[in-house]
Amino acid sequence: MIDSGNVKETEPWRELVDIVQGGDVEELDQYLESLPPGEPGRALSRMTDEEQAGVLELLPDEEAAELLEKLPEELAVQLIEHLPVEEAASIFGEIESRGQAELLTRFDEEEAVAILDHLEPEEANNVRVLAEFPRDSAGGLMVTEYLVYQEDLRVKDVLDDLRDHSEEYSSYGVQYAYVVSPARQLVGVLRFRDLLLTSQQKAVRSIMIDAPICVTTAMGLEELKRLFDECALQGLPVVDDHNHLMGIVSRSDAERAIQRRASQTLLKFTGIVGGEELRSMPLLLRSRRRLSWLSVNILLNVLAASVIAWHQDTLSSVIALAVFLPIISDMSGCSGNQAVAVSMRELALGLVKPYEHLRVLWKEAGIGIVNGAVLGAALGGVAFLWKGNPMLGLVVGAALALNTVLAVCLGGAIPLLLRRANQDPAIASGPILTTVTDMCGFLFVLSFARITLPWLVTT
Amino acid sequence: MIDSGNVKETEPWRELVDIVQGGDVEELDQYLESLPPGEPGRALSRMTDEEQAGVLELLPDEEAAELLEKLPEELAVQLIEHLPVEEAASIFGEIESRGQAELLTRFDEEEAVAILDHLEPEEANNVRVLAEFPRDSAGGLMVTEYLVYQEDLRVKDVLDDLRDHSEEYSSYGVQYAYVVSPARQLVGVLRFRDLLLTSQQKAVRSIMIDAPICVTTAMGLEELKRLFDECALQGLPVVDDHNHLMGIVSRSDAERAIQRRASQTLLKFTGIVGGEELRSMPLLLRSRRRLSWLSVNILLNVLAASVIAWHQDTLSSVIALAVFLPIISDMSGCSGNQAVAVSMRELALGLVKPYEHLRVLWKEAGIGIVNGAVLGAALGGVAFLWKGNPMLGLVVGAALALNTVLAVCLGGAIPLLLRRANQDPAIASGPILTTVTDMCGFLFVLSFARITLPWLVTT
Repeated sequence: MIDSGNVKETEPWRELVDIVQGGDVEELDQYLESLPPGEPGRALSRMTDEEQAGVLELLPDEEAAELLEKLPEELAVQLIEHLPVEEAASIFGEIESRGQAELLTRFDEEEAVAILDHLEPEEANNVRVLAEFPRDSAGGLMVTEYLVYQEDLRVKDVLDDLRDHSEEYSSYGVQYAYVVSPARQLVGVLRFRDLLLTSQQKAVRSIMIDAPICVTTAMGLEELKRLFDECALQGLPVVDDHNHLMGIVSRSDAERAIQRRASQTLLKFTGIVGGEELRSMPLLLRSRRRLSWLSVNILLNVLAASVIAWHQDTLSSVIALAVFLPIISDMSGCSGNQAVAVSMRELALGLVKPYEHLRVLWKEAGIGIVNGAVLGAALGGVAFLWKGNPMLGLVVGAALALNTVLAVCLGGAIPLLLRRANQDPAIASGPILTTVTDMCGFLFVLSFARITLPWLVTT
Repeated sequence: MIDSGNVKETEPWRELVDIVQGGDVEELDQYLESLPPGEPGRALSRMTDEEQAGVLELLPDEEAAELLEKLPEELAVQLIEHLPVEEAASIFGEIESRGQAELLTRFDEEEAVAILDHLEPEEANNVRVLAEFPRDSAGGLMVTEYLVYQEDLRVKDVLDDLRDHSEEYSSYGVQYAYVVSPARQLVGVLRFRDLLLTSQQKAVRSIMIDAPICVTTAMGLEELKRLFDECALQGLPVVDDHNHLMGIVSRSDAERAIQRRASQTLLKFTGIVGGEELRSMPLLLRSRRRLSWLSVNILLNVLAASVIAWHQDTLSSVIALAVFLPIISDMSGCSGNQAVAVSMRELALGLVKPYEHLRVLWKEAGIGIVNGAVLGAALGGVAFLWKGNPMLGLVVGAALALNTVLAVCLGGAIPLLLRRANQDPAIASGPILTTVTDMCGFLFVLSFARITLPWLVTT
């Protein structure tokens, strides 16, 4: 019975470092096994580059590969890149095909070429082909390790083959065997259950499921996910445009990919552009990645704030307004980002299509009016009570109300428009939204104030 | 071969409404089957309450249940709540146990009681028990439909049972059978593969895997996810504290739960408190949920901006500062939120534990110093160039630099501290962070300005 891992007395990474120094493979292996799930990753991310390399070099290649497959991808990439290339290549060779392809796309160009050079030509070629497919497509998610039989075999042949290779096959995740024509075109699927309940002399062709559901290499992740939601299958065969069987995409790989994407959304939303950062990465790399987005943002901020600069005269006449400018900017951003988040989720669930921005505008306008009225009244009330000037309350309240309507409408529509333009809504929605709402918010407050200046300056 | 769904000429929901009015079950069934994955949900979310009810009432219960199981949960809840209770209960009865339990926790109290009253007492009790487990625990994720055999049976008995109930069992997702003692304590697991390759006269006990990996009902989702990452199993048996078999949690259910949680994170982060909103929900419900967070936020904003109010004199002496206040507020928020997002992801991946906030502070301080220096220099430069006053540049630049260090350190640590206090970091991190960084940012700018006033007022 496996219970939640308790806090260890000593930090596991210190213990690991000690064991590696001792050089006992058995002990290392047993210690890694004994750690609760997730803990090996946490321990490795605490170590120096040399200590990490020490762990991988001490383990047999196959076990090192297994360890890497369980780690967050960015951490696995880091670990491999710090190994001597021969060592890296021989561990890499033990990773399963799709895992190889995923890592390959993350390596530096140079590292990738060097590792491929050390692999068997056939294996290197296979990985190269897999890595060509867009990552979040059926082609990019499929594995090339699966069971495949020619349609003219008998059930007995299949059972013999299963028995002879049971060791090898047991590492294949998928629970079906696929049947192909001599030209390797997909013609059917075999369930183990059916093999079990039939005469061994029958032809495979007679017990297979004909014309099975299959997907093309180009099918996108979201489509694939919805397809798995609708059928009970654990894996789907992937074919090229001529119905040749190319690989298998498993339910759990598709789900893991969706999940990885979802877990990166928040990082992208806050401007960590690749959606990847671990604190074990080098400081300057992390800093540079964060800055690349922040520096665009500071430009946009200066642009938005230039609206205030144009209206300095109004502002110096009614200095109290300066208190409300950051509030209006922040609150409009918050209201707008709620709409962005709802749109991004509805896009991911397939409940809204990118061309439906008018429907979204309509649905958001209602919320904008209600919430704008409430928030505007609240902030206007605060302004009125503070200075005892009803016009100040009116200016501030009306500006926030109006800007809230604008912000939720824009926030709802921007992700759809970005998706239509094939841009990633997670990265670009926020900066576009807040720049526009800041500019408009400042403009509303300061131009309303200019118009009503005679009533305001009595303050 | 299933390709990505193309845009339909007519909107599917209009066609669905027409078919329901026609009243032809067959046609409805075929039309639903013909829609690309995800499209039924999109169509239903476009309809009025009555039209939605029409679809479910026309379908046979079993098919209505199947349809509901494929929809986003919030949408399914909406649909059921709009049905007459008898109809709702008879469709609900056809949903699989865990799905029932999940829906049950979402219904209004009244609706839940009414539906349970219409179920068979045994079934109602089963659902009630399942719904008691925390949703994101093994108990809350397990299903109670699975294959279980007594340890004293022979292989032949199992095969006979499988053959006799093949129809019923084919709807069970999990790929193993479980073996229990007469007291229903878990003693082993049977693989179909082993049943297939052995003599039918053998005892089940002799071919089962002894002492299989199992988890307790209390195991949390993240732990469970990591356990699945580490083993190749498709499902894990769930036991109570006395090793009684309670249910099975499948890999794909655990992954789906992780994924749902991740997809809700962004909504929570932007203040949609329950992490749930679909645009098909009623306007006032959506508006109220968003407002509940916004109204806390506006209070915090007023609190933060009060710092500006205290320093009005300084501000009216150097009105140019008013341009920089919103920039400093926004940029510090952005820098801090990046750190929040990295911390939340590292927590979810198990790479950092809640008690490690000092390590996070240390790791973030470095980034804060580098990024603070760069951003401070940039904004200071803009201020200097604009007014030609080096002291203005220094005040603005130093304030942003200092506040960036503060923001990233706080942003990194807050999610860990909230997690330690058993609060949801997704909801509370943002408001806490921005309130503190706004206050400090305003305070830095305005108090630096007060000190250097003689050099600034020459502007």
